Amino acid sequence: MSVPQRLSILTLGVADLAVSTSFYESLGWRRSGSSMDAITMFQLEGSVLALYQREALAEDAQVPAEGTGFRGVTMALNCADATEVDAVFAEWVAAGAMPQVEPHRAFWGGYSSYVADPDGHLWEIAHNPYSEIGPDGRLILRPPVA
Amino acid sequence: MSVPQRLSILTLGVADLAVSTSFYESLGWRRSGSSMDAITMFQLEGSVLALYQREALAEDAQVPAEGTGFRGVTMALNCADATEVDAVFAEWVAAGAMPQVEPHRAFWGGYSSYVADPDGHLWEIAHNPYSEIGPDGRLILRPPVA
Repeated sequence: MSVPQRLSILTLGVADLAVSTSFYESLGWRRSGSSMDAITMFQLEGSVLALYQREALAEDAQVPAEGTGFRGVTMALNCADATEVDAVFAEWVAAGAMPQVEPHRAFWGGYSSYVADPDGHLWEIAHNPYSEIGPDGRLILRPPVA
Repeated sequence: MSVPQRLSILTLGVADLAVSTSFYESLGWRRSGSSMDAITMFQLEGSVLALYQREALAEDAQVPAEGTGFRGVTMALNCADATEVDAVFAEWVAAGAMPQVEPHRAFWGGYSSYVADPDGHLWEIAHNPYSEIGPDGRLILRPPVA
């Protein structure tokens, strides 16, 4: 067998589950009935975002919870065009996200911006003219190289 | 409008792009033709995983690249049953992943394990008997609560 080429759930460690849940709900996102007292889950287009108390997440992975600075991880939310980037960026900021990088033409030919959620998790809101967004909202890359 | 309930790309900051790319390829994953010299991309079942040099990723988000300890982020790869968890865990370890938590019955009723990739990014390899995996490999949560 081989390893499924798959990311089932991305879990973000958060300081206050109620605050972070409210934040994502204020984007208009609706949490799944699979959520429980200790974990909030959102069915995304193609994957799942979960929010879980940061120390509990560290304990689950059996690593020390201490950590500072850049996490080496970013999430991207791709939009159909620059206009949608501007609008989605504004919605995140209106929901209380910190505007990290204002929407701008990026060196790679796209249109990009960054916001940070209440725990500092970084989301890039971007349009990439070289990648198609399918009817189900999924980003469609080019097929694997031969 | 509302914000699409969407994660388009998860990007992991890595120390050595060639090493990390080889690692994920050794899982049997095939990189997309959308990859470039500076970024490796994998079309996942429902989303996209990207690998990008850590300092470059920090620069893109205009944050300092320094950071240590727990990142507050984990990825999950859900399997059909405990037997598949054991097999997939073994494949990651055979590919060079660090076994972080051996497969075990978890308190929440599932079967869970953790591995770390070459940069310490934590992947949970798990079976959750309460969540269905659809024919396209996506995890299907319960619908939103009313």
